[in-house]
Amino acid sequence: MEQDCAYKTLEARFRQIALYGEVASVLHWDAATMMPPDGASPRGEQLSELRVLRHRAVTAADMADLFSAAEQEDLDPWQRANLREMRRDHRFATALPDDLVAAISDATSACEHMWRDARATSDFAAVSDKLSVVLKLTRESAVAYGEALDLDPYDALLESYAPGVRSADIDPVFNDYAAFLPGFLEEVTARQANNGLPVQPKPVPVAQQQKLVARLAGATGFRFDAGRIDVSAHPFSTGYRGDQRITVSYHEDDPMASVMAVLHECGHAAYEAGLPAAWTRQPVGQALGMVVHESQSLSVEMQASRSPEFLGWLAAQAMDVLGPDPAYEPNNFRRLQQWVQPDFIRVEADEVTYPAHVILRTRLERPLLSGDLPLSDLPGAWNKGMKELLGVDVPDDRRGCLQDIHWYDGAFGYFPTYTLGAMLAAQLAEAAHKAVPEIPQALAKGDFSPLMQWLGNAIHAQGSYLDADGLITQATGHTLDAAAFKRHLHRRYLEG
Amino acid sequence: MEQDCAYKTLEARFRQIALYGEVASVLHWDAATMMPPDGASPRGEQLSELRVLRHRAVTAADMADLFSAAEQEDLDPWQRANLREMRRDHRFATALPDDLVAAISDATSACEHMWRDARATSDFAAVSDKLSVVLKLTRESAVAYGEALDLDPYDALLESYAPGVRSADIDPVFNDYAAFLPGFLEEVTARQANNGLPVQPKPVPVAQQQKLVARLAGATGFRFDAGRIDVSAHPFSTGYRGDQRITVSYHEDDPMASVMAVLHECGHAAYEAGLPAAWTRQPVGQALGMVVHESQSLSVEMQASRSPEFLGWLAAQAMDVLGPDPAYEPNNFRRLQQWVQPDFIRVEADEVTYPAHVILRTRLERPLLSGDLPLSDLPGAWNKGMKELLGVDVPDDRRGCLQDIHWYDGAFGYFPTYTLGAMLAAQLAEAAHKAVPEIPQALAKGDFSPLMQWLGNAIHAQGSYLDADGLITQATGHTLDAAAFKRHLHRRYLEG
Repeated sequence: MEQDCAYKTLEARFRQIALYGEVASVLHWDAATMMPPDGASPRGEQLSELRVLRHRAVTAADMADLFSAAEQEDLDPWQRANLREMRRDHRFATALPDDLVAAISDATSACEHMWRDARATSDFAAVSDKLSVVLKLTRESAVAYGEALDLDPYDALLESYAPGVRSADIDPVFNDYAAFLPGFLEEVTARQANNGLPVQPKPVPVAQQQKLVARLAGATGFRFDAGRIDVSAHPFSTGYRGDQRITVSYHEDDPMASVMAVLHECGHAAYEAGLPAAWTRQPVGQALGMVVHESQSLSVEMQASRSPEFLGWLAAQAMDVLGPDPAYEPNNFRRLQQWVQPDFIRVEADEVTYPAHVILRTRLERPLLSGDLPLSDLPGAWNKGMKELLGVDVPDDRRGCLQDIHWYDGAFGYFPTYTLGAMLAAQLAEAAHKAVPEIPQALAKGDFSPLMQWLGNAIHAQGSYLDADGLITQATGHTLDAAAFKRHLHRRYLEG
Repeated sequence: MEQDCAYKTLEARFRQIALYGEVASVLHWDAATMMPPDGASPRGEQLSELRVLRHRAVTAADMADLFSAAEQEDLDPWQRANLREMRRDHRFATALPDDLVAAISDATSACEHMWRDARATSDFAAVSDKLSVVLKLTRESAVAYGEALDLDPYDALLESYAPGVRSADIDPVFNDYAAFLPGFLEEVTARQANNGLPVQPKPVPVAQQQKLVARLAGATGFRFDAGRIDVSAHPFSTGYRGDQRITVSYHEDDPMASVMAVLHECGHAAYEAGLPAAWTRQPVGQALGMVVHESQSLSVEMQASRSPEFLGWLAAQAMDVLGPDPAYEPNNFRRLQQWVQPDFIRVEADEVTYPAHVILRTRLERPLLSGDLPLSDLPGAWNKGMKELLGVDVPDDRRGCLQDIHWYDGAFGYFPTYTLGAMLAAQLAEAAHKAVPEIPQALAKGDFSPLMQWLGNAIHAQGSYLDADGLITQATGHTLDAAAFKRHLHRRYLEG
């Protein structure tokens, strides 16, 4: 037993660190769904105290010695992978000096707060001073991470969101997609125009949308004994084993928005719920970064829920719960849910044009970070990029470079995970359908279980045992590339 | 500056400790109002981790030295009172060995869980083994507190809930009330019988009750920008500056129960909201124990809201929001809200018979704790006591010694605070009406502000600067006794 001592001590420490994370997730959820306005300031102080606790625990003075001692102990492969993930956490936490962590926290709070007004008034100049502070501090942290991890600064930021992802892998994939898109888009829009515009659904009261949302969440395997669905300004999913919390926003005029959002969040929640129970609260038991996480939400929302099989069933549910509406006539409904339309707003984009939004941001955030693109040139560069990639003229910064919170909140290097996740979802869908051919027939009856079982084994139950390349290869036979995604788009939009 | 160093360090430590408390209050609120069933187990671990953090911080090895050094520093009177309150926290936290704290936490969780079933099936024997473990550990902790504080064990428990309260003060007051009650009850019930039974209100849908509840909370000064009202099995109030959370339970058949419960909780919330802002998160800025807290809820619910002046206004509001009902005819409504009826259940008792429920529990918990009353004799002793005090025959243990959670959750020494709080509320009402004679006329218009302003200055803004005797004397001219309460009952029930 003595020889296990360092490893067991580390497990106990990381259990405690995970508990701080669970508590923080409840506080964040509450802030987005329940908290009255005057609660914002004390909530900020509570969360900052929890961050300090977590940081202090991960960077404790004896951690390095415990890691070295644990390496010498007799560990099984999962314990060894857990130790590797602990070291990863520690490496990130120790990379930044405490005063930089505090400065980033203050600067992003101030910038994010200012951004809300700047976006409302479409006034980029009003927030650019604050953003330039965030950018400067993010640059410092990228350099510090890079030194600690022996990576280029931008790659170090990517690594923090998506272990193993490098810009050298992203560039060819994104350039290829940018080249593929204009021709593909032309074909798709010409084809869908043949049948005119689909009929839009009539407005539906929120209470009825909630009934449909609950039914669909249940179909994906979401358990209300171990979770809730609430309302927030932007949909998200959080929580932990036993208590998964999803939020949706409802718009009477657009009843299918809440439905598709909940299916997306249910994909995230299923991943969290299916993580290996034996490794709860240990680093190896956590989700493997944001690319894999997004692949799970898009497996449910884009791959499964917008498949022709599932859309047939969903149209019948909509008719049943929301009431009769020509928009839910099966053919019209399918055209509605598969409609492709270049537009300004990322979060409203279809899956064909969505990558263009991500490519634009990825192309801009790297020169922003390096300083090659001055902040004052951002709006112009944004609008030029949108014209080149999607052929649209951005009317104002509100619908341009002010639309997303990410940069204003200090999240540089995050955007690529959305599109890599979409590509991984397509690659996983091909492998799943090959292994379990009855998935489409089951979806046609609203039955997600064959799909979720495959994803559960291939992805969810693997936690962070393997690295991303290892996990994706084990699940699909090869590492991540864009081929399956392009095949999927071709099938769905030119053959379907 | 150097000379302030120890005190300032202590302030920073106790700010952190208070933040842990705020976080725990959010988690408790969420558990009672929002959490899905499977969230209970992780929530227990999160709360236990926060307790450990708090305990570790309060009992840090250098605390005693910091206290000694701070005593020598140049402090103003509030800082000195703050230091006194810090020492009080520290004395309680260090009194119990860590393993006893953990054992109590486990035993009360297990017992409380078992009690829920035992109460449902009215089966005291099913929970008595678990209760005997709780009792044994509570006895140990009472002895340990007593040694640390130089108090008799039961007095040490009282002190933990109500600083300064001793059994020697309670005994004569409670014995006097027990002697006063039978004759008074006879007079009141004879008098009210003259006009027959009042008409009971018709059932009211929960949504309408919620409208009335929100209006009444607003009338007491409750701000929805800085608080919420939700639903839980038992009403409570929690939170902190900027984020007060009240819960109510609604019963369609008894629409006035939610209304009176919210008025009660608004009294608690007003106390918390009115604590001295400059001392937020410091011990001297906290409420002064449970007697004073209960006096604030009862000042609003019993003294103000069941006064004839306010009941006239409330009847009109009920008529307006809940719809016309002969029960809300002013004279009937007042008789309903002031009806006196000996019964089995403490939480449903009127203010005349309520003290008898408390006296019974106080008389039983001391011999239980000392071991003079064996647990197996508790049901019999309970039923005998109810017969003696209120003349009622307890039909079963569900409506007898199983009705309250307190003992099963380890809370011995808590019950007396309810009745001492009622007595203090009456004493404060006399002082308030003398100082601000327009309080009743304002209440007749639904205006709580003159009362709340007086309570705000006399009680809320004082925090824990004075001890309880000092605070009560400053506010009312003398220390707490039962005279004002008895005068109040006489006025309301025999003269009103």
